[in-house]
Amino acid sequence: MFGKKIKVSVFGESHGKCVGGVIENIRPGLRFDEYELQQFMNRRRPGGKHATKRCEEDIPVFLSGIKDGVTTGFPIAFQIENGDKRSKDYDNLKDIPRPSHADYTAWLKYRGFADMRGGGYFSARLTAALCVAGFLAMKQLEEMGISILAHLKSVYTIEDENPHTLGKQQKTALRKKEIAMFSDEKIKEVESLLENIKKDGDSVGGTIECVVTGIQGGYGGALFDGLEGHIAPYLFAIPGVKGVDFGTGFSSSTMKGSEHNDSFRMKDGQVVTKTNHAGGILGGISNGMPIVLSCVLKPTASISGEQQSVNLKTKEEESVIIRGRHDPCIAIRAVPVVEAMVALAILDVVVC
Amino acid sequence: MFGKKIKVSVFGESHGKCVGGVIENIRPGLRFDEYELQQFMNRRRPGGKHATKRCEEDIPVFLSGIKDGVTTGFPIAFQIENGDKRSKDYDNLKDIPRPSHADYTAWLKYRGFADMRGGGYFSARLTAALCVAGFLAMKQLEEMGISILAHLKSVYTIEDENPHTLGKQQKTALRKKEIAMFSDEKIKEVESLLENIKKDGDSVGGTIECVVTGIQGGYGGALFDGLEGHIAPYLFAIPGVKGVDFGTGFSSSTMKGSEHNDSFRMKDGQVVTKTNHAGGILGGISNGMPIVLSCVLKPTASISGEQQSVNLKTKEEESVIIRGRHDPCIAIRAVPVVEAMVALAILDVVVC
Amino acid sequence: MFGKKIKVSVFGESHGKCVGGVIENIRPGLRFDEYELQQFMNRRRPGGKHATKRCEEDIPVFLSGIKDGVTTGFPIAFQIENGDKRSKDYDNLKDIPRPSHADYTAWLKYRGFADMRGGGYFSARLTAALCVAGFLAMKQLEEMGISILAHLKSVYTIEDENPHTLGKQQKTALRKKEIAMFSDEKIKEVESLLENIKKDGDSVGGTIECVVTGIQGGYGGALFDGLEGHIAPYLFAIPGVKGVDFGTGFSSSTMKGSEHNDSFRMKDGQVVTKTNHAGGILGGISNGMPIVLSCVLKPTASISGEQQSVNLKTKEEESVIIRGRHDPCIAIRAVPVVEAMVALAILDVVVC
Amino acid sequence: MFGKKIKVSVFGESHGKCVGGVIENIRPGLRFDEYELQQFMNRRRPGGKHATKRCEEDIPVFLSGIKDGVTTGFPIAFQIENGDKRSKDYDNLKDIPRPSHADYTAWLKYRGFADMRGGGYFSARLTAALCVAGFLAMKQLEEMGISILAHLKSVYTIEDENPHTLGKQQKTALRKKEIAMFSDEKIKEVESLLENIKKDGDSVGGTIECVVTGIQGGYGGALFDGLEGHIAPYLFAIPGVKGVDFGTGFSSSTMKGSEHNDSFRMKDGQVVTKTNHAGGILGGISNGMPIVLSCVLKPTASISGEQQSVNLKTKEEESVIIRGRHDPCIAIRAVPVVEAMVALAILDVVVC
Repeated sequence: MFGKKIKVSVFGESHGKCVGGVIENIRPGLRFDEYELQQFMNRRRPGGKHATKRCEEDIPVFLSGIKDGVTTGFPIAFQIENGDKRSKDYDNLKDIPRPSHADYTAWLKYRGFADMRGGGYFSARLTAALCVAGFLAMKQLEEMGISILAHLKSVYTIEDENPHTLGKQQKTALRKKEIAMFSDEKIKEVESLLENIKKDGDSVGGTIECVVTGIQGGYGGALFDGLEGHIAPYLFAIPGVKGVDFGTGFSSSTMKGSEHNDSFRMKDGQVVTKTNHAGGILGGISNGMPIVLSCVLKPTASISGEQQSVNLKTKEEESVIIRGRHDPCIAIRAVPVVEAMVALAILDVVVC
Repeated sequence: MFGKKIKVSVFGESHGKCVGGVIENIRPGLRFDEYELQQFMNRRRPGGKHATKRCEEDIPVFLSGIKDGVTTGFPIAFQIENGDKRSKDYDNLKDIPRPSHADYTAWLKYRGFADMRGGGYFSARLTAALCVAGFLAMKQLEEMGISILAHLKSVYTIEDENPHTLGKQQKTALRKKEIAMFSDEKIKEVESLLENIKKDGDSVGGTIECVVTGIQGGYGGALFDGLEGHIAPYLFAIPGVKGVDFGTGFSSSTMKGSEHNDSFRMKDGQVVTKTNHAGGILGGISNGMPIVLSCVLKPTASISGEQQSVNLKTKEEESVIIRGRHDPCIAIRAVPVVEAMVALAILDVVVC
Repeated sequence: MFGKKIKVSVFGESHGKCVGGVIENIRPGLRFDEYELQQFMNRRRPGGKHATKRCEEDIPVFLSGIKDGVTTGFPIAFQIENGDKRSKDYDNLKDIPRPSHADYTAWLKYRGFADMRGGGYFSARLTAALCVAGFLAMKQLEEMGISILAHLKSVYTIEDENPHTLGKQQKTALRKKEIAMFSDEKIKEVESLLENIKKDGDSVGGTIECVVTGIQGGYGGALFDGLEGHIAPYLFAIPGVKGVDFGTGFSSSTMKGSEHNDSFRMKDGQVVTKTNHAGGILGGISNGMPIVLSCVLKPTASISGEQQSVNLKTKEEESVIIRGRHDPCIAIRAVPVVEAMVALAILDVVVC
Repeated sequence: MFGKKIKVSVFGESHGKCVGGVIENIRPGLRFDEYELQQFMNRRRPGGKHATKRCEEDIPVFLSGIKDGVTTGFPIAFQIENGDKRSKDYDNLKDIPRPSHADYTAWLKYRGFADMRGGGYFSARLTAALCVAGFLAMKQLEEMGISILAHLKSVYTIEDENPHTLGKQQKTALRKKEIAMFSDEKIKEVESLLENIKKDGDSVGGTIECVVTGIQGGYGGALFDGLEGHIAPYLFAIPGVKGVDFGTGFSSSTMKGSEHNDSFRMKDGQVVTKTNHAGGILGGISNGMPIVLSCVLKPTASISGEQQSVNLKTKEEESVIIRGRHDPCIAIRAVPVVEAMVALAILDVVVC
């Protein structure tokens, strides 16, 4: 459960009946288009060319809080059925944790009671539920003139163009692409990389950048009330995210103050900054410039080939081979999830 | 205010009477050495060779919760007097926000009522209070066999040695150094860099790495309960921190799964991982390996020389010159602050 | 959403598809009997002799967190279908709020978007979901030797016997009674009262007392950490509860200190108190004696006969007649709900 | 620490240097009169005719967040010196808990490390700090047209007049009285009662009623978001409060629905209720009528005369005699504390 005002919880398991969630305090009277929601869900959905072969329809069914396509103000509960499960693929893994998965730590925490087939509650399948909640948050933000756009900043060593110079058209086009990069050339490079990676039974990491435009200055606060500290946990909740930074982020470590400082100027009667190395946040407070953040997704932990593990029952070292269907790069399908999580984080700030 | 169980709040202002704080739920009966606390405070204290020339004694006075050097279990309140202030240095800045400081955003949030001389509540001076709270957390963790050590991973482009191969001696030595790097050679490089940067009236960024050893597996949880999302806000609360990552973090974006995965093995009857790219956290849960994290500190915003700003009263563009005393690299003095914040974050996890 | 560790949220609406909920952090490996759960649900279920004529089966279906009748440690989600709805009964009420119901205040808060037929999210139907969560909490508490028992302290002016002198047998018998009073004589009086009240189309209030036995001393804390302040909101969350007190509670206002003080003595090597006017809580902390609390449930707001209201559209005063099926005294069915809520409150305290 | 937005923490001990507190998110630019604050403090202050003979000046000193009598928006920290302590009076009590005090439960929780002289952190002395925070909250509420007034509803068996029929003048007069009852006749009765009680070395309980006027409808929510559940913990945080109810509260148990229901009518274009048995809250949401609540304060635990206790060291039963200075009825001085706590609770609701 998360959020001070826009409270979200998700439930379900990879190989259970369904995944689902509850979101509270979305404004009453918000109208949304189910087709648009479905399109958003499809961007995250498994089954794409570059994704695992697990086929899910991912159609959210609302259990409460929605009447005739309009929010009522009550908690909105929803569920998404789990269709195509292949639990058998996990039979050989019961006592042997897969390296860099949550199997071992779940075993420590849940003392063996958790059903870890498909990753259980740790499965990226749960992010489908986060997307439903995030979509509703995004719709409410849109009404307030705030929009959120994420793209693949990099896949392995292939970096996308800088989006900050791009126009609206290119941004709209992005949402239709299976690989959410602005540069079509780079997309081709990524496609060929993924094909090779897949052949090798390997995987790669990637980074996602997300930009929030239209947010006014003055949100957030000093120290523990800072926006960065508020937003970051939403991103770290996405399975596989191992780092989050804002503005120039980690790159600012090798910058001088004279390069990094964003000087002020006036534009159309508004105070703006010439550059935006701060990523729209100064002293933990939004300054009216776009909020820019990035996160890194580690390489998919599921890879083919023998890996070294231990048998938790016998305490013997044993090798393990992972079957099942897996994405060569989880960053690709995580793009809408990042948008969803940033939307939930930002809405929680602006309604408080 | 922060923390589920180990609740911390800090108050005070750069140019007010004092800074201080309150920490709740430190265990009753914890004994600590005031001299050791003072040594810890001194590592953060201004006035060092590489630091601002502001001279503060930074002696915490306890107002409650401590009796005869032992915690009673009641909330521990403390204050640290503000001695050497030069408020006049800030007189010319009242209406003209300093670039990349919190002046402008504080003005947006507090509608001009905040006393921003010296940065007000946004001042790094508040981190003195965080250090007192963090020191107490560290003492309680020590009793549980958990220790926390941070070092400067890099200053500008100069990187420290990898600490993971170092022995206990080198770690103890670190705490006595003004520049907390393991490599004495690199320290010399940094010293000469800082001298030049100071001469230029400029500043540089840096990164700090922190390692938590002795923490058992099983703490944390999936999604919103993940350790990364729990720890990150404590670090983002430090003024100037713009990014946080865990394990190989952002570097894992250019790794393959076959390189990144940490295979399991047995060691002295314990399940361990061969490598620790995960930074001790899998699926949001500690796996018993050291927790490794890094954060980036942007270059000090206060630099000499004319900078472009705007007058918030007249809405005219105006240039500004910052007087006062400033660190060429805030990362250097932030090392104990990172330790303090990580200690507060970890203690909150292990006592819950 | 509620609770620091044992987090509970409920969703659904009186006239929607279902009601349901999510409970987090029930211990993994907890085994429970579905038949026992059903029996507990039946105590709250509508359709009894003294209850509304709405017929619901109230069978919880678990969506996650349970495998083969055992908790896995993951969030436990469940839903209960809504069967017998008569939405038409509410057609005449759309713009005319029923006195002492949430209709008017929901209209203020949700600006008319909420579906208030049957009370919507404010319906006592939601307490079915609270009972599922509370039952699980009660099972985990039982393992720890903590048991919870509520009874009707009074219905209108008819008061039950004092339970503190009763044996185990009478306590077990209580759970099988439709009217949860210890005294069978008083039950007969209540039955005849309710028959008359029903004939008159009127309703009455009542009070419920709840006793927690087996809880150790030392839980809770001073001021904001007090047990009373922790438990009370769980009870006020029950629709119709307008007051909560502990121990002798409001009666202690007309007592002298010399009567009220609970003197200490030793019993079987344990410190106990001779009397328990404090209700097991001193200075906000449990003292090892049973925790005793009471709450009042106002008379059912739905009564027959013309009542004065206003038309929210026309702003004209208008009279309203409530159709539908209603309990003459909501306190009667609220007994297991009080047990459920106290269980959730107490478990949240003892696992933290 | 308490509150979602208006966060309050207090620290200090009865026999320590000082008590104090921190309040966050009071609006920047709030101006208040120090003399008015002092008058408010004096209403709670010990030393009155009907109070303990401990003499304290109770002058709050602000450490941060206030500049030239105006709030800056930063956390407001303050302290109040402890003057007149007589720690010796407590020397004989170290191992023998006073009946109905927090001594024994504090010993359980803090394992003997807590300094319980004068009640330590459990002392009513801490309510002085709550009053400072509450006063600031009250000032911000006043600007919004919301006012808060508490009076002694009863002392022992002596009940005050019903305030709901009284005019503004009588309400203003109340704040000047040492015994906050509307009826001067009843005050005389109370004075003579207290004299006798004091002579006997005994104490009595009492109830306090508090009315919040000017609060708009629509605040709060269903179930866990209800106003009653939000407000109650603030009151239970006051040492000695053992019950809280709203509107007719516990009396509604012996009412019929036909008596209890508040019918709606129009008044000056506004929807109002004819009666206010609901105490301004329906379905957990404010309905625009005054919020009316009551709480009970148990008889002062400190009474003269021998009481039975146990020696925690020897585990032998032992009698105890309490020396020191004590109020015959804590309810009398708790009136401004109730106002302060209700102000903090209400402000937290209306600013969120």
